[in-house]
Amino acid sequence: MVSEAVERTAERIATMEVRGAATIARAAAEALATAAEESDADTPEALRADLREAARVLHDTRPTAVSLPNALRVVLTDVQGETASELRASVVETVDAFVAGLDAARDDLGRVGANRLRDGDTVMTHCHSTDALACVEHAVEDGKSISAYVKETRPRQQGHVTAHQLAELGVDVTLIVDSAAHRYLDDVDHVLVGADAVTADGSVINKVGTAGLAVSARERGVPVLCAAQTLKLHPDTLAGHSVEIEMRGESEVIEAGERERVGDIEVANPAFDVTPARFVDAVVTERGQFPPQAVVTLMRERYGDATTDPWAEPE
Amino acid sequence: MVSEAVERTAERIATMEVRGAATIARAAAEALATAAEESDADTPEALRADLREAARVLHDTRPTAVSLPNALRVVLTDVQGETASELRASVVETVDAFVAGLDAARDDLGRVGANRLRDGDTVMTHCHSTDALACVEHAVEDGKSISAYVKETRPRQQGHVTAHQLAELGVDVTLIVDSAAHRYLDDVDHVLVGADAVTADGSVINKVGTAGLAVSARERGVPVLCAAQTLKLHPDTLAGHSVEIEMRGESEVIEAGERERVGDIEVANPAFDVTPARFVDAVVTERGQFPPQAVVTLMRERYGDATTDPWAEPE
Amino acid sequence: MVSEAVERTAERIATMEVRGAATIARAAAEALATAAEESDADTPEALRADLREAARVLHDTRPTAVSLPNALRVVLTDVQGETASELRASVVETVDAFVAGLDAARDDLGRVGANRLRDGDTVMTHCHSTDALACVEHAVEDGKSISAYVKETRPRQQGHVTAHQLAELGVDVTLIVDSAAHRYLDDVDHVLVGADAVTADGSVINKVGTAGLAVSARERGVPVLCAAQTLKLHPDTLAGHSVEIEMRGESEVIEAGERERVGDIEVANPAFDVTPARFVDAVVTERGQFPPQAVVTLMRERYGDATTDPWAEPE
Amino acid sequence: MVSEAVERTAERIATMEVRGAATIARAAAEALATAAEESDADTPEALRADLREAARVLHDTRPTAVSLPNALRVVLTDVQGETASELRASVVETVDAFVAGLDAARDDLGRVGANRLRDGDTVMTHCHSTDALACVEHAVEDGKSISAYVKETRPRQQGHVTAHQLAELGVDVTLIVDSAAHRYLDDVDHVLVGADAVTADGSVINKVGTAGLAVSARERGVPVLCAAQTLKLHPDTLAGHSVEIEMRGESEVIEAGERERVGDIEVANPAFDVTPARFVDAVVTERGQFPPQAVVTLMRERYGDATTDPWAEPE
Amino acid sequence: MVSEAVERTAERIATMEVRGAATIARAAAEALATAAEESDADTPEALRADLREAARVLHDTRPTAVSLPNALRVVLTDVQGETASELRASVVETVDAFVAGLDAARDDLGRVGANRLRDGDTVMTHCHSTDALACVEHAVEDGKSISAYVKETRPRQQGHVTAHQLAELGVDVTLIVDSAAHRYLDDVDHVLVGADAVTADGSVINKVGTAGLAVSARERGVPVLCAAQTLKLHPDTLAGHSVEIEMRGESEVIEAGERERVGDIEVANPAFDVTPARFVDAVVTERGQFPPQAVVTLMRERYGDATTDPWAEPE
Amino acid sequence: MVSEAVERTAERIATMEVRGAATIARAAAEALATAAEESDADTPEALRADLREAARVLHDTRPTAVSLPNALRVVLTDVQGETASELRASVVETVDAFVAGLDAARDDLGRVGANRLRDGDTVMTHCHSTDALACVEHAVEDGKSISAYVKETRPRQQGHVTAHQLAELGVDVTLIVDSAAHRYLDDVDHVLVGADAVTADGSVINKVGTAGLAVSARERGVPVLCAAQTLKLHPDTLAGHSVEIEMRGESEVIEAGERERVGDIEVANPAFDVTPARFVDAVVTERGQFPPQAVVTLMRERYGDATTDPWAEPE
Repeated sequence: MVSEAVERTAERIATMEVRGAATIARAAAEALATAAEESDADTPEALRADLREAARVLHDTRPTAVSLPNALRVVLTDVQGETASELRASVVETVDAFVAGLDAARDDLGRVGANRLRDGDTVMTHCHSTDALACVEHAVEDGKSISAYVKETRPRQQGHVTAHQLAELGVDVTLIVDSAAHRYLDDVDHVLVGADAVTADGSVINKVGTAGLAVSARERGVPVLCAAQTLKLHPDTLAGHSVEIEMRGESEVIEAGERERVGDIEVANPAFDVTPARFVDAVVTERGQFPPQAVVTLMRERYGDATTDPWAEPE
Repeated sequence: MVSEAVERTAERIATMEVRGAATIARAAAEALATAAEESDADTPEALRADLREAARVLHDTRPTAVSLPNALRVVLTDVQGETASELRASVVETVDAFVAGLDAARDDLGRVGANRLRDGDTVMTHCHSTDALACVEHAVEDGKSISAYVKETRPRQQGHVTAHQLAELGVDVTLIVDSAAHRYLDDVDHVLVGADAVTADGSVINKVGTAGLAVSARERGVPVLCAAQTLKLHPDTLAGHSVEIEMRGESEVIEAGERERVGDIEVANPAFDVTPARFVDAVVTERGQFPPQAVVTLMRERYGDATTDPWAEPE
Repeated sequence: MVSEAVERTAERIATMEVRGAATIARAAAEALATAAEESDADTPEALRADLREAARVLHDTRPTAVSLPNALRVVLTDVQGETASELRASVVETVDAFVAGLDAARDDLGRVGANRLRDGDTVMTHCHSTDALACVEHAVEDGKSISAYVKETRPRQQGHVTAHQLAELGVDVTLIVDSAAHRYLDDVDHVLVGADAVTADGSVINKVGTAGLAVSARERGVPVLCAAQTLKLHPDTLAGHSVEIEMRGESEVIEAGERERVGDIEVANPAFDVTPARFVDAVVTERGQFPPQAVVTLMRERYGDATTDPWAEPE
Repeated sequence: MVSEAVERTAERIATMEVRGAATIARAAAEALATAAEESDADTPEALRADLREAARVLHDTRPTAVSLPNALRVVLTDVQGETASELRASVVETVDAFVAGLDAARDDLGRVGANRLRDGDTVMTHCHSTDALACVEHAVEDGKSISAYVKETRPRQQGHVTAHQLAELGVDVTLIVDSAAHRYLDDVDHVLVGADAVTADGSVINKVGTAGLAVSARERGVPVLCAAQTLKLHPDTLAGHSVEIEMRGESEVIEAGERERVGDIEVANPAFDVTPARFVDAVVTERGQFPPQAVVTLMRERYGDATTDPWAEPE
Repeated sequence: MVSEAVERTAERIATMEVRGAATIARAAAEALATAAEESDADTPEALRADLREAARVLHDTRPTAVSLPNALRVVLTDVQGETASELRASVVETVDAFVAGLDAARDDLGRVGANRLRDGDTVMTHCHSTDALACVEHAVEDGKSISAYVKETRPRQQGHVTAHQLAELGVDVTLIVDSAAHRYLDDVDHVLVGADAVTADGSVINKVGTAGLAVSARERGVPVLCAAQTLKLHPDTLAGHSVEIEMRGESEVIEAGERERVGDIEVANPAFDVTPARFVDAVVTERGQFPPQAVVTLMRERYGDATTDPWAEPE
Repeated sequence: MVSEAVERTAERIATMEVRGAATIARAAAEALATAAEESDADTPEALRADLREAARVLHDTRPTAVSLPNALRVVLTDVQGETASELRASVVETVDAFVAGLDAARDDLGRVGANRLRDGDTVMTHCHSTDALACVEHAVEDGKSISAYVKETRPRQQGHVTAHQLAELGVDVTLIVDSAAHRYLDDVDHVLVGADAVTADGSVINKVGTAGLAVSARERGVPVLCAAQTLKLHPDTLAGHSVEIEMRGESEVIEAGERERVGDIEVANPAFDVTPARFVDAVVTERGQFPPQAVVTLMRERYGDATTDPWAEPE
């Protein structure tokens, strides 16, 4: 039975009160620290069992948000201690380090990505990605003048948020509908997108529309950068698992009245699509930039190549 | 000075009361017939001068709607007669034939396109094209079961009209946002689009988003059909002229309040884009299907290869 | 009621006693001449009706062999005469000219194709095509040394016939299984195939395996030549019709005993496949070589662009 | 025995005193007019024989310069007359028209090409082509601001001439070595080259380096325009003939002393290479722009599709 | 002088009584264990010398079967011991672990591959690969419905074995000739092949026909999976060595009598071909799936990056 | 204040008296050894401070020559010692090992590359690369007959040096202008180039013209090998930094007098260009051959993934 604090965190993740890859990861890691602190286990084995139980509860809230299991995986794997109290201290310390890493990652990634951008460059963005924005932000801080074509990103128009934040940075922003992207690629130096997940075979899972944009960019000779913290690497895919593509509600695409007028149709609203490695020129992480085909090496370094889940009960 | 009837038609074209490629062509041709009937010229030369004047007035209303000059070009080139009354009769006859051709063209084109579709096929559409719809309509009439992915086609959502009309035909329709097209191409047998114009080098000018769709379709191995009556062939392009791409208002893309919230940005809203011949597998016309690279032959057959405009005053 | 001679020819075509594109065309044309000679019609209208009836009987024997309707189409379209006897004479004359053209075509085509081959060139062949062989034959006659990789062409191993005939010509022949083609393309100067039909959109319908070979050749930088007399152009495709792909018996692929051992499986044995225009560098005909995208021009010159069949009864 | 005037022209062509495609064509045509005027033939047959003899003498001087046989072909094919004097007059008239066409062609072509260029465009050139320059010249006359990357075009550095002439027109010129082309293509709107010949399969024969440039341009998403008067169309290629690629002297590539220092090597110095149709977006002629795959249609219109040479003695 | 047991194993490998990558590896490893047990060496140095000698005898039987040197390499590298008896025990233990790994590898690989397959997927296979079959087997066990197009794989028709085994698993199997693959790729979700070897540059060496299939699959937009245990990684290629492609007997391709009838020809019968990394989407191993470009990392982890052979006598 | 010896080395690097990647690396490393020997520091900290100071002086001479910081990085990272004298000895030892590695690297790399070349192969080279030449040299030593197309490599004609050295090795050399490369690629088995730097995303920075050559080679189906010692890996690029492309003087491109004649133009003379990983088949190093996408793994192994410079003063 997990502590109330863990339950609360789990609830807040499940209800999406806590959202965003890094925020979820931090909440989950901190919940493990709390679980350790609140546990009255007096052997390391008992404490580990309590931690696994807490991790399972947290994990089951949103199993498709890759940063959640990644946070649990890092903490449960790294902690050590020969007594309960040593182990307890180690959990707290590991969680602190992990959280500090989260805080630094966006900045570190931004600096790497900014180095790819030259003064006067024009980027094209899709959806809203804090990692991608960090690259532009650091480039601007470095004194580079950057322009941007911002795709509105139907159906939820996250491009408006991107446009707003870029404009605040002093970037010259041109907002376009998604279909106009191909036409403007000739004026673009880099396509710059984020990722919801990066897989072992180097594919980028990102907001639907990324794959088509990347194919167009290749045809137009424009390089594609994907900004993705290592928190987005998806270790399950090493074992061949696919990343489930969320299908979202129809009302995002067409409002009810209009839909009735249109008549007897289906509406398909996938949230993401899959861009194969060969259409991506570099994945920018807080650990440097990598060809997408080399990301699996980074994935194994950070999350191991075991196919078991550290929160599972040992058989 | 042109007759009131011609003036009225010109006005109705200018104000877009008359719209749609075929409707404009018909109105213009019929206005020429009226001009001939109302003209009191008593020599063929005088009558021809009156016709040219009427044609110029009509032409100047919307010079970028290619069906308008095409209609004028066909009528002015085909008429003949050694007396004013012979010529007058020839105008009426030529216009009747031209209009009859217009009426038949959509059907004839539809039959050609329908023959490309097999029972059980799935098409993907972009924007709303009566020519493209004619292909599906005839396929359905031939007893074929057709499914369709219909791109909504931001910013004006003409896909809703397409979805509605396809559903009425009994087609299984799935509506998607434009960005989801790439993801669903694996389930598609033909991309089927219309055209606003087809150029001498075989490019297809169509609703913005067509070019990116065609590039994606090539990458996914899906053939691209463009349904375009010969009325859409753009003879000016033979002389190297580009087709002007209309830039439309920003409010189609983002409503005023939201735009203010977003901040200091530009909005670019091009109506069309250009798909090079190499991404199109066939252009379906009422005269049969052609590789896009052979359309120039059809263009010269129908509109000649003169670089002069038949409505211009002879020097 | 058609004459016995026509019935006999029809029967011989139906039973495939008469086979090969040119042989069928000749037989059909000659049967029309016989029909004209044996008809006792005494008006041109009656004679034309008899000719149409004969043509229909012939046409229905193997409607998918494109040379058959093409022969009928040329003869029925070209004949003229104001009296029955004038028309009768015209039929005989037209048929004679058509047959003479058939005799010359292979040679003329061979000379064109031979000019593309240089001394020392290596070709790769698929299946058995007399048109393709004519190119090599003329090249050898011109004193050029030619080598050939000959694909065996499962399931019917027509490559053995090709290998035999090339070896007889003095060509250095290397026989390979179909799967080895990609590996040897680096040593090949031209892929040289025939065609069962060439369509209005420039696609080549040929023995199954041609499409994959052409795609491989493009990837390896090897040009693809398709040798096809204009008799192979398929005018129905102008109207969007597909060429039906014959599915052949399973026993060609796996013999009965072995199949039983293998167990509960399907066997699919398509005779042909479709190579899109973009993978073919030139179509070699008796009228010269053409880009596949220009073949539709030749098709319309030879067979018209009417969508009606000249053997159909006028409504 | 041909007249002295014809001999002189032949000599001047053979010694390359007369050079340049249009200049050669004009000289040859005018020599035919002179031959007609100086001939004392008193039957059309005799005069035609004299013309054929003159044409043969002219033709044999530089059979690889395609404009020469093209000029002879047009004149010999178009002339007519039922008496010697009628025929003689027809020759003069035909030659006049042909020469007038030559004079107009560069301008007409330039206007077509200029229409493809927009204000502010940057072109990249290879070698020196008066047809390509005509396009820029007319664009500048139309008030458009044009910039140019000019490849120096080793080994003969014809790019210097191009750079000079463009600079004279007021174009912003940047001279680069040939190897730097790929790097600068991202800043280029059109690759603009001329042609020594265009073949029936749509290939462009031009100064060595064109093919690689065109392949690079496709990879970078830059369209390739080939400016080529119809005088450059190569009717022999319709019959499958290849265009012989001239191999030029080694001293153009490496001067003798340096070569000795380098040691025992070969030097290969081909003057031209072959760019397949699929890498060329449009061929700009004085008759309009065409996809390269449609040029064969223009070729047959202008030079016929006969495979015989009109200067050959009839058998 | 090696023991009889080693000699016997060597003989059985040489005569191909022992065959299949894993079976050979196991036999070779077990022979080393036997060699260790039967050796009367009383120093580790002497025992190592005996092991190297045994390894050399085994290695020379079929140097091109990569699993053989890989087994020797792993065992000779991993064993350790400070006395002869410690070392002897270590050999046995190492061999046991290696063999246990072999047993598990096919299953582990199968689970990874199965995770890539979705319910309702259709795969296309080439030749017969137990690794590829393991993927399907596990997918079926997971309750997924799988269909398969099975290429017969001339000349030895190993596709029949694949078809049989898939049918036994309950897979819907359609057998096709190799040439029909391109045509059916539109109905296929994954090409699924095995490998004889995977090289340091990420190329897949597999049954001839794989390369062409992979190129076709890319053109059709179908991902290519290569199922290959790490035993198939070819460490020699790290040092730039090519994998020798076995040329097999002509009688596999054409039987003697038929060959005589065909006449004076060569027959080329390569067993394998090379598919470059860029045409393969993922390599599925028992350690997870990897982009082919990352396989070299796995190769160095497992087999080291030394360029010396551990069975060579130290200099 | 650094020693005179270090100053002298720095000067010799700055003035390019010392040049060539390996020579610079050796000089820098040896200068560090001298600095250690000449330092009178008596604590490890003080000695390290002296070393850092020496490294900074050396580093600032030519920061764009990647082998220079790489040498400093390896030495400063690898040295260790608990006393000044231990550390001093360690520096000398580390430098000795590093220099020995440099000496061996070209040979080791040459052997790897030679293994890729088969007897009878033809390579095409660009510029002059000792690493690329080492591959051919070893292939020739292995008894293989190698031919070469050598691009002259404007503007500095380093191809003459390559041609000379290859001819000395007994290679059949054909010298061509750069523009002729595409034409001769059909006769080439491998493009073989060196590198000035290889980046974290797998791009190859090499003499301008490499990128276009690689794109052409892909189109022609010819593999591209890049021979580059690990000394050429550019660890700064891991942090997203671009490699600065040197712009060289105009007089290399056009001599002053000719330039004046040409008129008012710019001359752009970039020394290098960037070839993306997807156009390179393998990078050949002294550690084996790698797909370009895996080079980042090697880079991190050798130079670490820290983003700090070991010569910087700790904060």
